[in-house]
Amino acid sequence: MDTQQTWNLYEKLMKDYDTSLDADGVSGKRLAQRLSALSEIGLTDEHGSYRIGFSQEEKQAKQLVKQWMNEAGLEVSEDGAGNVFGRLSGRNPHRPAILSGSHVDSVPNGGHFDGPLGVLAALEVVEAWKATGFVPESPYEVVIFTDEEGSRFNGGLTGSRAMTGEIDREAQQQLVDIHGDPFEKVIEKVGLSVNTFAASQREMSDIKGYVEIHIEQGKRLEKAGVPVGIVTGIAGPSWLEMTFTGDAGHAGNTPMDDRRDALLAASQFVVAVNALPQQVSSTAVATVGKLDVHPNGTNVIAGQVTLTVDIRDIDETQRDRLIELIIQSATSICEAHQIDLEWKETQHVKPVPIKESMQEKLSSAIQAKGIAPVYLTSGAAHDAMIMGHHVPVAMIFVQSKDGVSHNPAEWSSLNDCVQSAHVLKQFVETY
Amino acid sequence: MDTQQTWNLYEKLMKDYDTSLDADGVSGKRLAQRLSALSEIGLTDEHGSYRIGFSQEEKQAKQLVKQWMNEAGLEVSEDGAGNVFGRLSGRNPHRPAILSGSHVDSVPNGGHFDGPLGVLAALEVVEAWKATGFVPESPYEVVIFTDEEGSRFNGGLTGSRAMTGEIDREAQQQLVDIHGDPFEKVIEKVGLSVNTFAASQREMSDIKGYVEIHIEQGKRLEKAGVPVGIVTGIAGPSWLEMTFTGDAGHAGNTPMDDRRDALLAASQFVVAVNALPQQVSSTAVATVGKLDVHPNGTNVIAGQVTLTVDIRDIDETQRDRLIELIIQSATSICEAHQIDLEWKETQHVKPVPIKESMQEKLSSAIQAKGIAPVYLTSGAAHDAMIMGHHVPVAMIFVQSKDGVSHNPAEWSSLNDCVQSAHVLKQFVETY
Repeated sequence: MDTQQTWNLYEKLMKDYDTSLDADGVSGKRLAQRLSALSEIGLTDEHGSYRIGFSQEEKQAKQLVKQWMNEAGLEVSEDGAGNVFGRLSGRNPHRPAILSGSHVDSVPNGGHFDGPLGVLAALEVVEAWKATGFVPESPYEVVIFTDEEGSRFNGGLTGSRAMTGEIDREAQQQLVDIHGDPFEKVIEKVGLSVNTFAASQREMSDIKGYVEIHIEQGKRLEKAGVPVGIVTGIAGPSWLEMTFTGDAGHAGNTPMDDRRDALLAASQFVVAVNALPQQVSSTAVATVGKLDVHPNGTNVIAGQVTLTVDIRDIDETQRDRLIELIIQSATSICEAHQIDLEWKETQHVKPVPIKESMQEKLSSAIQAKGIAPVYLTSGAAHDAMIMGHHVPVAMIFVQSKDGVSHNPAEWSSLNDCVQSAHVLKQFVETY
Repeated sequence: MDTQQTWNLYEKLMKDYDTSLDADGVSGKRLAQRLSALSEIGLTDEHGSYRIGFSQEEKQAKQLVKQWMNEAGLEVSEDGAGNVFGRLSGRNPHRPAILSGSHVDSVPNGGHFDGPLGVLAALEVVEAWKATGFVPESPYEVVIFTDEEGSRFNGGLTGSRAMTGEIDREAQQQLVDIHGDPFEKVIEKVGLSVNTFAASQREMSDIKGYVEIHIEQGKRLEKAGVPVGIVTGIAGPSWLEMTFTGDAGHAGNTPMDDRRDALLAASQFVVAVNALPQQVSSTAVATVGKLDVHPNGTNVIAGQVTLTVDIRDIDETQRDRLIELIIQSATSICEAHQIDLEWKETQHVKPVPIKESMQEKLSSAIQAKGIAPVYLTSGAAHDAMIMGHHVPVAMIFVQSKDGVSHNPAEWSSLNDCVQSAHVLKQFVETY
């Protein structure tokens, strides 16, 4: 299939664009062109994005943004973890910098807004300043964080964790990717090394604050009828990797009452997990999205199932209680089926509440653009969560159509995307 | 790991071998050496066998048996489907032949007896005749059927179906293997073509009967304390391939009550399937052993799940009722979860009752060897089932340790294997 011919994000974005939003140097056309150019890198047959962390596609997307950064007059650098910075020194180059950006990696067959919008809107602010001759007081940096999604090593937030020193070098080196390749070998293929990775930690006192634009990936802004919203806190995810081990056996000659079927126990667990979040809070979620059966033969009873549970809540205590309930459920199901259970927590990130002072500054910027301030929480983790452990952060959510994300159908209107760039520009100029 | 050093099937087999079973030209040592030599081809890290249909490993195993056939003085030929025949003309070369054999392909990480024992025991009869100077009245052929397990194309019994004309050429050509490669391309790699495949049908009137030795893959002979048993009927399998389609979405930002989670519905179905066989009969079984999640990302709600249900019973009416119940269950679960369901039956094989006259002949042979006749059904499909649609068949089951099969732990003692060769020899000589 010639995807080039049937897929044109630019045209789709421009179709219902309100050109009156082109103001103060911000250009909807440029933003649409750039979102579209990135969408071509790793485009899947289903018109989704396949740019998982540390892939050639992620690297290629960074290269393209670097080129735009250069053209916009930014000083471009890349650290040892592959994080890209495009810096504008401003009137006082020695002051701490304001950073804004996101990531350009995607989940397998993901959408074209999750990540790229945050990077390109941050760059659009620079373009607008260039067009109007504005020079900011403090340095401003557009940032691309490496491997936010974590689809490659079942981890994530890798770039921001490396830059803030939140990464365990030993643990990182022991990672093995989805193809069975070790971390060191994978990162070498995109020009990185374990040594440069360790050297990528940055002095946090050089950063005044971090602000990130990201699609909401939920339906609340759509229901509220506003283009953007103010994030009040980010739910930290816990990932539990579990292995259910039973006995592989012949599907035809093993009586039903004489089996240790790992998939049967795992399936019962998946059903149980779905009912547990409501026991702790209305904002808690738990999902089994990744599950692999071994040996996975039609006429073989499953001997082993490996799955990952993604558990989130904005409140740390409730989130951790949900983790406990889920482990208890797996344990009792495996006991009942005489299945061996092993589990480990591969990710455990503290939820981050966002400072009220930052929320207020963002609220002012939003109101200055004539938009009603709407407050909401983030169920998804973002690089802003990691940055929020070290520097003041703000987060702007952009309306998502039908709340769909991590999916080719992911969509935000160009009008809403451009509105977010205006809000970001206002926020940075007045911060 | 050097599997050669830690794995020696020959030594394991010989450890408790009763050499008094070496009689009438049958050699336990030779049978053990040959089972061991085949076990080295495609040996996995877990000491299992990986010789899926149409693999280089299956081809290599056939080559080795062909060499032994040649050395035993058989006239060796291979048909267009890759079925191998080693023929002894006997005193009356124009009479219909008695065929005996099985297959040398395995499931992924299967055992070393399922298939190879039937081929090597049939060959052992020839070796015994050669040693004692016996010449049979009718022609006798040792046969290796191609791709019995069907792990490659989610099908199976391919060689025997091709030879008996039970194969749909059109459907076969449209198959796509587990790696996404089309049937034509896969079979070319082992020297076969679609044209030769179609030409492999054989005249059934040239065959007097088919007898197959196979491990039981159950615990009934072990419980009865006999080395071999008489199969009274073979349960025909039905394979239902089902696709559950929901909405992929972000695992963090999609509320629990606003999801269309394909894996949740599929899991509920797996649990439901397990409870259904007991509603139709005590011999019915149904298994989901193969299940694939898409996109299979930790933080992505499953958008699609594809799975296969393996359904069997000896009684066709009950088996077909179970198929209906399973489809109804999938339909109602998917309706409740607003999940789209698609299904097709990829295999539907008629159960084969074995003629009483053939059972009696086998019973006589078993009793002539001083063994009590034990009758049992086969829950697994075998090439004898396909042959049974066209010519008289008999089937000898050999005791399986703990009933385990399709697993590296699959085991039958050399004593029992050798006993089965004696029984087969007696059966063929008196048939």
